[in-house]
Amino acid sequence: MRESPIGIFDSGIGGLTVVKAVRQILPKEDIIYLGDTARLPYGSKSTEAIIQFSIEDTQFLVDRGAKYVVIACYSSASVALDIIRKEFSIPVIGVIRPGVRRAMQVAKSGKIGVIGTSLTIYSGGYEKAFKEEGAEAEILGKSCPLFVPLVEEGWLDHEVTTLVAREYLEPFKKDNIDTLLLGCTHYPLLLRTIRKIMGNINYVDASAEVGTELAQGLKKRDLQNPGGKGSTSIYLTDLSINYKEIGERFLGEPMKNFSRVSLKSREMKK
Amino acid sequence: MRESPIGIFDSGIGGLTVVKAVRQILPKEDIIYLGDTARLPYGSKSTEAIIQFSIEDTQFLVDRGAKYVVIACYSSASVALDIIRKEFSIPVIGVIRPGVRRAMQVAKSGKIGVIGTSLTIYSGGYEKAFKEEGAEAEILGKSCPLFVPLVEEGWLDHEVTTLVAREYLEPFKKDNIDTLLLGCTHYPLLLRTIRKIMGNINYVDASAEVGTELAQGLKKRDLQNPGGKGSTSIYLTDLSINYKEIGERFLGEPMKNFSRVSLKSREMKK
Repeated sequence: MRESPIGIFDSGIGGLTVVKAVRQILPKEDIIYLGDTARLPYGSKSTEAIIQFSIEDTQFLVDRGAKYVVIACYSSASVALDIIRKEFSIPVIGVIRPGVRRAMQVAKSGKIGVIGTSLTIYSGGYEKAFKEEGAEAEILGKSCPLFVPLVEEGWLDHEVTTLVAREYLEPFKKDNIDTLLLGCTHYPLLLRTIRKIMGNINYVDASAEVGTELAQGLKKRDLQNPGGKGSTSIYLTDLSINYKEIGERFLGEPMKNFSRVSLKSREMKK
Repeated sequence: MRESPIGIFDSGIGGLTVVKAVRQILPKEDIIYLGDTARLPYGSKSTEAIIQFSIEDTQFLVDRGAKYVVIACYSSASVALDIIRKEFSIPVIGVIRPGVRRAMQVAKSGKIGVIGTSLTIYSGGYEKAFKEEGAEAEILGKSCPLFVPLVEEGWLDHEVTTLVAREYLEPFKKDNIDTLLLGCTHYPLLLRTIRKIMGNINYVDASAEVGTELAQGLKKRDLQNPGGKGSTSIYLTDLSINYKEIGERFLGEPMKNFSRVSLKSREMKK
């Protein structure tokens, strides 16, 4: 079991930022990654559909021997985490709570900013998570719908991206937040540009925080791989035109080991 | 039959630009519009999936009495038009060919530019269409992946949009094209910005050209509605957060008559 891989899934390839973070923190662990690119984006789907897809994604990883599952998709982690924990016997961790807990640790001023896609911000998932974690800080959300397409276009340091970031983040400067939570798989790639606008405040990268909590979870359950090779196998349900170029941007290294797969439909337990 | 509505479908709400164009040209016709927002975008799906979805969309419109079907989705029109014509007995028109034919009529210099999403450009669908229509002009394609999110964000005249357009369209200026085909439902809303960059050349709005060919088709088949009210009924398979605001941007008027619907699955004829 300790030699088994860690399973990570996302609706697309943005979750490879989580893979990158996990690899840095846990270099000996083997990772299998599933990107459900045939059905992305999950964010515009109904809750029932997101739950069903998330169960099928988890089943795929479990069938390949995953000892631990990480939900790298913000939509899935918002609506499906509890149900997946009930449906499967292996430990499961979502991308939302670790970032929330970290933001609460570092925030001093009582004002925490959260950026994400429209669904992430307007669904109120983050406000609920902060509340349930007992946060007393004021949570200020801002949706940044152009950030994902800008990252996928590869314009990480483009003047357009700086202009867009200035417009989106202006309200946070006025509100004097001291901590900004990057609530989307794509946003860590824009940190340099965001820092140019927001300056020297605390930045919490939810993708990286998942890695930290995953390492703690493996240790607590005695599931650490003593001698893995640190391999990464990538499975995608559809291969779009730019998937490799964009995927390598997230992963921070060449994508060597990837294949296209189909998912089996799976009934929920009664 | 002449009193029956025209059916128009798209994977999302961008096809409402086609509705707007049809209403202007055929003000007495009643229109039913289906946006398959639960399954958008079609562009990232497999050909088999797009065909299956397109058949279900058409069936929905036929079940509601459509006398003519317009495929306002570029991905559907690329891969599913011929099959839909075989599956259904009513006349069907796609969004691609009318724009191609119009561009061939107005182009003088022998160089035609086409802009669209990555799928539209890299699939080669436009090149094939121009070739099959007998075009001798050189066809220059450029994907503009940020245009759709910019329109959906509502930044139609924003300085960011001007900067993005300048970067995307620069190659066309160097190539001295004299005709630019707007090959995406969202792009007519950016025409003012595009014109600032490209100046006084020919612009072909594929959405509008579909309306023109539809009017000809109705007349030819004696299907014109002599006394319709010009009503528009909008059906969406999912209601996302900003659908109304964005939809009204495409439609150019308030969305009054809309409902959420589920599609029935449908087997293809053997």
